[in-house]
Amino acid sequence: MMNKLMAEFVGTFWLVLGGCGSAVLAAGVADVGIGWLGVSLAFGLTVLTMAYAVGGISGGHFNPAVTLGLVIAGRHDAKELLPYWVAQVLGAIGGAVVLYLIVSGGEGFTGVGGFATNGYGEASPQGYSMMSGLIIEVVMTAFFLIIILGATSSGVPAGFAPIAIGLGLTLIHLVTIPVTNTSVNPARSTGVALFAEGPALSQLWLFWVAPLIGAAIGAAIWKVMSSED
Amino acid sequence: MMNKLMAEFVGTFWLVLGGCGSAVLAAGVADVGIGWLGVSLAFGLTVLTMAYAVGGISGGHFNPAVTLGLVIAGRHDAKELLPYWVAQVLGAIGGAVVLYLIVSGGEGFTGVGGFATNGYGEASPQGYSMMSGLIIEVVMTAFFLIIILGATSSGVPAGFAPIAIGLGLTLIHLVTIPVTNTSVNPARSTGVALFAEGPALSQLWLFWVAPLIGAAIGAAIWKVMSSED
Amino acid sequence: MMNKLMAEFVGTFWLVLGGCGSAVLAAGVADVGIGWLGVSLAFGLTVLTMAYAVGGISGGHFNPAVTLGLVIAGRHDAKELLPYWVAQVLGAIGGAVVLYLIVSGGEGFTGVGGFATNGYGEASPQGYSMMSGLIIEVVMTAFFLIIILGATSSGVPAGFAPIAIGLGLTLIHLVTIPVTNTSVNPARSTGVALFAEGPALSQLWLFWVAPLIGAAIGAAIWKVMSSED
Amino acid sequence: MMNKLMAEFVGTFWLVLGGCGSAVLAAGVADVGIGWLGVSLAFGLTVLTMAYAVGGISGGHFNPAVTLGLVIAGRHDAKELLPYWVAQVLGAIGGAVVLYLIVSGGEGFTGVGGFATNGYGEASPQGYSMMSGLIIEVVMTAFFLIIILGATSSGVPAGFAPIAIGLGLTLIHLVTIPVTNTSVNPARSTGVALFAEGPALSQLWLFWVAPLIGAAIGAAIWKVMSSED
Repeated sequence: MMNKLMAEFVGTFWLVLGGCGSAVLAAGVADVGIGWLGVSLAFGLTVLTMAYAVGGISGGHFNPAVTLGLVIAGRHDAKELLPYWVAQVLGAIGGAVVLYLIVSGGEGFTGVGGFATNGYGEASPQGYSMMSGLIIEVVMTAFFLIIILGATSSGVPAGFAPIAIGLGLTLIHLVTIPVTNTSVNPARSTGVALFAEGPALSQLWLFWVAPLIGAAIGAAIWKVMSSED
Repeated sequence: MMNKLMAEFVGTFWLVLGGCGSAVLAAGVADVGIGWLGVSLAFGLTVLTMAYAVGGISGGHFNPAVTLGLVIAGRHDAKELLPYWVAQVLGAIGGAVVLYLIVSGGEGFTGVGGFATNGYGEASPQGYSMMSGLIIEVVMTAFFLIIILGATSSGVPAGFAPIAIGLGLTLIHLVTIPVTNTSVNPARSTGVALFAEGPALSQLWLFWVAPLIGAAIGAAIWKVMSSED
Repeated sequence: MMNKLMAEFVGTFWLVLGGCGSAVLAAGVADVGIGWLGVSLAFGLTVLTMAYAVGGISGGHFNPAVTLGLVIAGRHDAKELLPYWVAQVLGAIGGAVVLYLIVSGGEGFTGVGGFATNGYGEASPQGYSMMSGLIIEVVMTAFFLIIILGATSSGVPAGFAPIAIGLGLTLIHLVTIPVTNTSVNPARSTGVALFAEGPALSQLWLFWVAPLIGAAIGAAIWKVMSSED
Repeated sequence: MMNKLMAEFVGTFWLVLGGCGSAVLAAGVADVGIGWLGVSLAFGLTVLTMAYAVGGISGGHFNPAVTLGLVIAGRHDAKELLPYWVAQVLGAIGGAVVLYLIVSGGEGFTGVGGFATNGYGEASPQGYSMMSGLIIEVVMTAFFLIIILGATSSGVPAGFAPIAIGLGLTLIHLVTIPVTNTSVNPARSTGVALFAEGPALSQLWLFWVAPLIGAAIGAAIWKVMSSED
C-alpha cells in the first residue's frame, strides 16, 4: 500500500510540476514561448510518462476524480479511495512547492500571480461564466473517464492505454484552457491554489465538484455502453 | 446494436466537441492561442482517443464517409450503414449543442459566427474556390480510407491503428484547414452547420458529396492495391 | 510487383501532397498558420500513416534514397531499385499536380512561387550556402537510414517502426527546413521542382546526389555498428 | 563493447545535432520559426528515434547521468560507466562540430553566439538564478530516471519505453528551457559549450553536478517505490 501511495504522490507531483510548470515558466514568453499548445502537450505528457513509469504500481490515477470514477466502475477498491486522494493532494502540493522555489528565483520576481490556477468569471483566462466552466469541467471529466475505462478494457492490446489517456488529457487542455484553464483534476487545482494570488481558493469548490460529478457520469456511461446486449 | 450506436454517438459527439471546440474556443486567441496546428492535433486526438476507448464496441468510425468506405471494402455490414449514419449525425449535433452552451457563456457573447463550419469560396478560410474544395475533400477522404483500411488490415500488429488513423486526421487538417476548414466527415460538417451564422447550411451539400465520393474511391484503390497478384 | 509499385506511387504521392501541401497552403498564414513546426509534423505523418497503411505491401520506402540504402544494407532486392525509383518519382509528380490544381483555385492566384521546393544559396529559406546544404542533406539522410535500419531490425518489437521513422522525418525537418527546406528525398524534390518558379530545377542535382550519398553512408554505418563483435 | 560505444557515440551525436541544431537553426526565425515547442519536440525525438534504432545495441543512454542512474539502480554494469561517458562526450562534440560547419555557412555569419548552451543567471534564457537552475536540473533529472527505470521495467510491454522516455525529455524541455535552456545531460552541455561564445564553459560544472545528483536521487526513489512491500 505504501508503494501505491508513493507512486500516486510522485505522479501527481510530476503532473503539477510539469503541467503547471510549463504554463507558469514557458507559455507566455514572447516569440519563442510554447503557448497553450505547449502547455496542453506538457500536461498530457506528465500522465503518459508516469502511467508508463508507475502505472504498474498504483494504476496511475494522479487525480481524485479518476480514482472515484474507477471505484464507481468497479475497477478499483473503494477502501483505497481516501488514501489515494490524500496522496494525490499531497503530491500536487509538493509539485507546487518546487515550482514556487524555481519561480521565485526569476529575474525581478515580485509574486507568482495566477500560478496556473483554475477559475471562472473574472478568473477565467477568456472571461467565461461559472456556468460555462461548470458544464465544460463536468463534460470533459466524463469523457476522460470514458477514455480511461475504454483504453484499459480487456479488448485493447496491453501498453497503449498511457498513450490514449495522456494524449486525451492533451486534447482536453487544447479545448478548455480558455474557459477554466483546465482542471478535470481536483488535486491539480488544489496544489497551486494554495500559493496563488487572486480568487483561486474561493473558486476551488467548482474544481472538486464538477470533476467528481463528471467522473461519476463518465463511469456510468461506460458501464451502459460496454454492457452485454 | 444499441451499444454500437451509442459508441458511434459518443465518439462523434467527442469529435465535434473536441475538434470544433478547440477551433472555436482556443485557436485564435492572441499570443498563446493554439492556431491551426493545435486544432489539427485536437481533431486527430478525438479519433485516436475514442478509437481506443470504444473502437472495440462499434469499430470506431465516427464519420459517415468512413462507414460507407468500410461497407464498400467489405469490412462492415451494409445493413448497419444507415443506423450508423443517424447515430453519427445525432452525436455531432449533441457535441455542437454543448459547445454552443459553453460559447454562449463567453464575455460579451453576441453570436457564434462561423462556429468552425466548413465552406468554400467566400466561406473558405483563405478564399479557395468551390473546385479547390471539391478536389481536396475527395482526395483527402480517399487517402483517409486507404490509411484506415491499411492500418486495420491483418498485416499490421494489433493496437497501432488508432495512432495511424488519428494522426492521419491530424495530417489532413494540417493541409486542408485553409481550403475548406477541413471536413472529410459529413456528420462533423452537419453538426455545427445547424447552429452557425453564414452560408454553412447552403454549402453543406459539398461536405456530404465529396467525402462520400472520396471514401468510395479510397476503398476501391485499397482493394486493387491489396489484391493478390 | 505491380502492387508494390502502386503502393510506392500512392505513398510518395501522399508525402508530397501532405508535406509540401501543408507548407504551401498552411505554413505562412498570419496568426493561425502552422509554421515550420506544423510542416515538420505533416511530413513525418505522411510517412507514419503510409508505413502503417501500405508498408506491408511494398516496405514503405516512398524515397529513392531509402530504397538505395536498404539495397546496400542487404534488406531489399537490388532488381527492384529502378522500378521503385520510377514509381516514387511518378507518385511525387502526381502529388504535385493535385497540389497545383488546389493552389491555382486560391483567391487572386498569380503563380505557385517556390512551391515548397528545396534549395541552397539564394534559394535557401534562410540563405545558407551550398556547402551547408550539402553537408546537412548527407548527414541527415545518413541518420534517417540508421533510424530506418535500426527500427526495422529484428530486436525491435513489431509495429513500432512507422512511429520511429515517421517522427524521425519530423525531427529532420525541425532542424533543416531553414537550410534547404529539407529534402533527404530526391523524389519529393523532383515532384515540386517541375512546377515551381525560381532555381529549383537547376539546383535539383544536389537533392539527388546528397541524399543518395547520405543513404549509402548511413547503411554502411549501420552495418558496422550492428555487426557481430 | 566497440559496438556499444559506437551506438552511444552515434546517439549522442544525433541528440546534439538534432536538439541543439533545431534550437540554433530554426527556433527564433520570425513568423514560421519552431519556437521552444519545436525545440522540445526535437530533443525528445532524437532520443525516441535513436532508442528504437540502437537501443538494442547499447541500451540507448546517450547521457552520462542516465548511465550513472542505471548503474546505481543495478541495471547496467559499472565497469562500462567511464567508457560510456567518453563515447557520449565525444559524440556530443561530434554533433557540435557538424552543427558548427552548417551554421558557419549561414548568410552574414559572424559567430555562433550562445550555440544552444546551458546557463544560469545572466546566461539563463529568462534570467533565473543559479539556485533555480540547480533545483530544476536536479529534480528534472531525478524524474527522467524514474521514467526511464519505470518504462523499462518488466511490467511494461516491450517496445513502449522509447516513446515514454523520448516524450519525457520533450516534457522536461517544455518546462525548463526558460530556466537553464535544459540540460539534464552533461554530454549535451559539454559538446556545445566548447564552441560557444559567452560563459558556457565557466558554468559547465553545474550541468555535470546537478544532473548526476538528480540521477542518483531518481534511481534511489525508484528502488524504494518499486521494492517488494
